[in-house]
Amino acid sequence: MAKKPLFECVSLIGIGLIGSSMARMMRRDPSLAGRIVGAARTAETCETALGLGIVDEATTDLGPAVRGADLVVICTPVGTYADIVRTIAPELAASAIVTDVGSVKQSVIRDVLPLLPEGVHFVPGHPIAGTEHSGPEAGFAELFEGRWTILTPVPGRDRQALEKVAEFWRRAGSHVELMDPKHHDMILAITSHLPHLIAYTIVGTAIELGDDIQSEVFKFAAGGFRDFTRIAASDPIMWRDVFLSNREAVLEMVQRLMEDLSALQKAIRRGEGDKLEALFTRTRAIRRGVIEAKQA
Amino acid sequence: MAKKPLFECVSLIGIGLIGSSMARMMRRDPSLAGRIVGAARTAETCETALGLGIVDEATTDLGPAVRGADLVVICTPVGTYADIVRTIAPELAASAIVTDVGSVKQSVIRDVLPLLPEGVHFVPGHPIAGTEHSGPEAGFAELFEGRWTILTPVPGRDRQALEKVAEFWRRAGSHVELMDPKHHDMILAITSHLPHLIAYTIVGTAIELGDDIQSEVFKFAAGGFRDFTRIAASDPIMWRDVFLSNREAVLEMVQRLMEDLSALQKAIRRGEGDKLEALFTRTRAIRRGVIEAKQA
Repeated sequence: MAKKPLFECVSLIGIGLIGSSMARMMRRDPSLAGRIVGAARTAETCETALGLGIVDEATTDLGPAVRGADLVVICTPVGTYADIVRTIAPELAASAIVTDVGSVKQSVIRDVLPLLPEGVHFVPGHPIAGTEHSGPEAGFAELFEGRWTILTPVPGRDRQALEKVAEFWRRAGSHVELMDPKHHDMILAITSHLPHLIAYTIVGTAIELGDDIQSEVFKFAAGGFRDFTRIAASDPIMWRDVFLSNREAVLEMVQRLMEDLSALQKAIRRGEGDKLEALFTRTRAIRRGVIEAKQA
Repeated sequence: MAKKPLFECVSLIGIGLIGSSMARMMRRDPSLAGRIVGAARTAETCETALGLGIVDEATTDLGPAVRGADLVVICTPVGTYADIVRTIAPELAASAIVTDVGSVKQSVIRDVLPLLPEGVHFVPGHPIAGTEHSGPEAGFAELFEGRWTILTPVPGRDRQALEKVAEFWRRAGSHVELMDPKHHDMILAITSHLPHLIAYTIVGTAIELGDDIQSEVFKFAAGGFRDFTRIAASDPIMWRDVFLSNREAVLEMVQRLMEDLSALQKAIRRGEGDKLEALFTRTRAIRRGVIEAKQA
């Protein structure tokens, strides 16, 4: 007799890169979900997800999407959460668990928590994984393997709900870490938000150089630029929302970066090669740390 | 009967990532070089190169390294060129061709050209290819395949020498483009030098956050940061020299970037989501350009 799955019905709000990867991952491991329901903004995405066979049901209607689900995962840009939760709140099962995958945690908790009915558990989450591709076709079941998923539990909330969500991510192949939401937002500001902002900026700077330069920028991108274009191809709406929602931490990191960049600018202007070499030697050591942490 | 190779003896000054990749590539295609001599600063590198079987001879002595070579390729940091050329000039064969692989071309021409004896041909070159790894073990024969090699010929110099170097790179699998040295330095400042400078800066900014943050930065690097650590692991001396030698163009690009970053900073502070989204949508299109140019 088959063992009871971890969740009877998982509802994915949003079937993009992350949502569809989760769906595929649950398909691969039936111990996770008895049934998978997907909700998307457009009928086209619903049809694509059904066509891919990664959900049992797909709908553009949020109410029916969450009705009867014991796990609801919000996988949309963080700016949409308040509206979504307002819509699904009356439809949620009495002791449902709501979690999410958003890149910012303080604003998400602020937006979501007051809107949830009593008895419903909220476990804010963030799998540190992704690619520059978007949409239901872009997902893959292995996306979370060997990566970290951070959960930022809300004080005083249900311990069991937290443990179930942690177990979900562990079965996805992820390492799970608990973290304070404010600390999460600071760490992500430097490891993810600032790199994306800089990649967007530098590609934007190249665009501004004019049309005749652009074809050359494409041709000679292998000198380093191509990595930035990859990052700067990430979903515009998702990232707009991240920067606006994690404004404070992002602005602080931008400020620090600008100061460091000014110092380098000055060192180059003055021909202070020793300062450049010393920094570049220190940064090289950081790469070894990333490789040793198996996140390269 | 075997056809005569393109060059009878190729002397590589420097057997790092690029030099050793060229050596491997010549080993793979015997139509390129009858004999390969490598010169390195340390006896250890010479032994490694000999052990790898990628050179016929290796020496720490520059004079014997170039004697009898009909092609000399300088594959060391651009800051070393003047000293090297001063040493090899008296040893060069009467009609030898000297070329290089440096990331900056105006300063290289300024440094090298006045030091070469009459009759010796100088063809400044730059294969737009590389990895973050250094040293003779890091090279591979396929490094230049499908990539661009830019040659910035010096006015009035020998057409035949230029054509031979171009043919060398074409047989390496590279596309060859001729370019004005000043234009080269500007294009590379945006497509290569600025991305490296920014990657070094951002990894440096992360280091400054303190030791307790660093292990978390490693763990959660998959959110974008890891690409920057890869770039910021590139050879410190090589890049120090690039920034100092292409100072003007690099500083101009840093200035433009800082202005664009300030504008984004302001947009985030003011919550102007439409501006962010508009930029991020434009940068996404650039990625397609890079993919279509087959440089992704």
